[in-house]
Amino acid sequence: MAQSVFTIFGGTGDLTFRKLLPAFYNMCIANDPQFKCQLIIIGRRSYSNEQYCAIAKNWVKKFARLPYTEENFTKFTQKISYYQMDFTDLNAYTALNDYYSTNNLAEHIFYFAVAPRFFNIIAEGLTKVCLACKGKVILEKPFGENLDSAKLLNKNLEKFFSPENIFRIDHYLGKEMVRNIQTLRFSNPIFSNLWNSRYIESVQISAPEDMGIESRGGYYDASGALRDMVQNHLFQILSIVAMEWPEQFSSTAMHDAQIRILRAMRPVKNIREALVLGQYKGYHQENLVKPNSTTETYAALRVFIDNERWWGTPFYIRTGKKLNRREIKIAIVFRPSFLEKAPQNILIIKVQPSEGVYLQFNMKKPGDTEEITQAKMDFCQTSYVNRLNTPEAYERLIKACIDDNKSWFSQWDQIELSWNFIDKLHELYKWENLPVFKYDANSTGPEQADELLQQSGHNWID
Amino acid sequence: MAQSVFTIFGGTGDLTFRKLLPAFYNMCIANDPQFKCQLIIIGRRSYSNEQYCAIAKNWVKKFARLPYTEENFTKFTQKISYYQMDFTDLNAYTALNDYYSTNNLAEHIFYFAVAPRFFNIIAEGLTKVCLACKGKVILEKPFGENLDSAKLLNKNLEKFFSPENIFRIDHYLGKEMVRNIQTLRFSNPIFSNLWNSRYIESVQISAPEDMGIESRGGYYDASGALRDMVQNHLFQILSIVAMEWPEQFSSTAMHDAQIRILRAMRPVKNIREALVLGQYKGYHQENLVKPNSTTETYAALRVFIDNERWWGTPFYIRTGKKLNRREIKIAIVFRPSFLEKAPQNILIIKVQPSEGVYLQFNMKKPGDTEEITQAKMDFCQTSYVNRLNTPEAYERLIKACIDDNKSWFSQWDQIELSWNFIDKLHELYKWENLPVFKYDANSTGPEQADELLQQSGHNWID
Repeated sequence: MAQSVFTIFGGTGDLTFRKLLPAFYNMCIANDPQFKCQLIIIGRRSYSNEQYCAIAKNWVKKFARLPYTEENFTKFTQKISYYQMDFTDLNAYTALNDYYSTNNLAEHIFYFAVAPRFFNIIAEGLTKVCLACKGKVILEKPFGENLDSAKLLNKNLEKFFSPENIFRIDHYLGKEMVRNIQTLRFSNPIFSNLWNSRYIESVQISAPEDMGIESRGGYYDASGALRDMVQNHLFQILSIVAMEWPEQFSSTAMHDAQIRILRAMRPVKNIREALVLGQYKGYHQENLVKPNSTTETYAALRVFIDNERWWGTPFYIRTGKKLNRREIKIAIVFRPSFLEKAPQNILIIKVQPSEGVYLQFNMKKPGDTEEITQAKMDFCQTSYVNRLNTPEAYERLIKACIDDNKSWFSQWDQIELSWNFIDKLHELYKWENLPVFKYDANSTGPEQADELLQQSGHNWID
Repeated sequence: MAQSVFTIFGGTGDLTFRKLLPAFYNMCIANDPQFKCQLIIIGRRSYSNEQYCAIAKNWVKKFARLPYTEENFTKFTQKISYYQMDFTDLNAYTALNDYYSTNNLAEHIFYFAVAPRFFNIIAEGLTKVCLACKGKVILEKPFGENLDSAKLLNKNLEKFFSPENIFRIDHYLGKEMVRNIQTLRFSNPIFSNLWNSRYIESVQISAPEDMGIESRGGYYDASGALRDMVQNHLFQILSIVAMEWPEQFSSTAMHDAQIRILRAMRPVKNIREALVLGQYKGYHQENLVKPNSTTETYAALRVFIDNERWWGTPFYIRTGKKLNRREIKIAIVFRPSFLEKAPQNILIIKVQPSEGVYLQFNMKKPGDTEEITQAKMDFCQTSYVNRLNTPEAYERLIKACIDDNKSWFSQWDQIELSWNFIDKLHELYKWENLPVFKYDANSTGPEQADELLQQSGHNWID
């Protein structure tokens, strides 16, 4: 394998120090003969290589998975070149190009480890770099703030990079139990034979968070729960839960199957039957939040998928800040038994914090009675600690990018369809002046979210 | 409720002392205003009431569930009348009749706590007792040794007792998880929707025993595994697993549904494809066993049920003595996934020694791999200790008999159909000179039992 040249924009930022450098350190000293890289660290400040590496050293010491030794670190620093540059200055890219030529650097992978608002300017700047267009680019979310800005960003990137070389990270796709959904669904006839609207009454995807918006008030207040969580992560999960058998487990086939679900999502007409918004009490006091902001910190959404498999089965999605717990779970609620009083069968895919599968079914109460009791089977993965936001996870992402493995990354057409759905929802709820209900911190969110389900006789599974 | 008069034939036998008297003691002192009884204890020996009660005292002390006190026991003895009689002497029944008349005893329940060979003579004797014909009768297994003797016994009983007053105990029907099968099947759509040959590849009912024939050589050598276990207990389980929804959970409806399965059992034509027999090494040295006996101590049987639900799904049954474990379990083996290499889904209903449900399905192996691993979910009932052969179980049986609740008892038509099937099997294997394979004690039985399944590409679930 040829040597990859990673250019990291935002080389003195948090992401680089905490995640990327420790990840590269691990990969460089792991003696994988396949892995050869060089790192060009772009920063605004004036550092020599030595100065930069001296700073990097402490981060690597602290966060690298593999043991730190001076010898290994010295070996690692030989891969690092610090390059001072203001990446918002388009003229500076000509010099960058000269630097690449002089040092004969090709096989580019550009990592945009910067705030999203800089994505466009860097993309534009790179047009001045010869050969860059043959390289790959890695970006973190959010990919745009709405459909228009996402389109613009994508246009700018695609002007220059070919679509298959754009790697948009969606961390949720790397979560163990999200990746497990397809195995669970398709390798188990006891589930696959029941995985449709004839047997499933509703699907419930819940992603409550206990934290508030922390220091992200500026970004969050302009975004809200629908754009921050639903448009990307939760629609990804929904489409994996709902997709048809992707013929093979390749990321392309899976991506195609997911796309078909996003296309089949029924546009919302009556917004009051489909969406409940909330905002936690005290949100207005958060830093950088507008004093009269109506941004939702909680959203509960009902979606229908108009295809043969899911006709008549609602998908419920809810997420919010400052709720009474932090978890991600997917509840598959089966239609009731023909026997009265028998509680419904429920399968729960637990994504975090614990990972596993929970199944609830009915048994006879032990003893001389015919009463029904519930068997609650809980399968937890104990051995595996899921660390998504760790240098290890970034090692996987970087390797996946080198290998052109797209399964951890989301594709433009998914993003486009998701934004389109969310944008229309936004327009509709603004137009209809949908209320944003206040809810207490440490609660389950606004009670109106219960009514969203009760109109169909359903209840949230908690 | 009127007072019931229990006449116990075999009043000085093991069953009476260990189970029945402790059970009656519990019921008599439990202050249940509904429960009023009198006990007529029939024995050959010459005892006064006092003498008999003095013997009974130690058994009650030892086995009764409720605390023993002199006061309670004295209260209990007031219910007991010892009646000396040789119940094999038909003339003696006239005197018994006089005794009943003199003491104005009616509302009879006769308990045949004697060896099965005495059932007929007692039934005949009771014809001399006025009013007895309006009473009920309780018998333990085996009900006959083959179809003819069972018919004769039934004829003799029905000559005198009406069919609904004959209570034939099948202890397996009282086992917690056997009674649970219908709840599991019918109150859970995740199971009920899959409960047919389209989704189930095979059903396996296993009842290995670790003990040998103990002191029962005389009985067992004339009987064998098919008659001792399969004809009654395992065909009961099979018919509950396979039956159609019995419309209601009454014992009559359930019994009808079971009967339809027994009728639909396909007669065996090629015995070598359907039956494997074994005999443990050392069986010939057992007490009361014929030196050249070919009686099977192990049987593995393949049965098909010719109805719409089960077309093409074999039911495998196996049981045997001196095997490597003692347990009863029912394995539901689902058809394989369309994905190669995915192990089959399996549901196991564990009847004994532990009670519960086990479910095995596939998941993705944690980590950066798409390999499949198996999730094994085990639900055990911890709180409830199943005690079938205890005085407590007999309390339930006695109460069920008083209440005319038939769910713990087997019906004549079931017995008739079962005997018919087993008798034909016997004739065929004798005629075909089917080998009886020797197997080691503490093994899983003869390996030929594996081949019985392998002809269809199946394997025993262990």
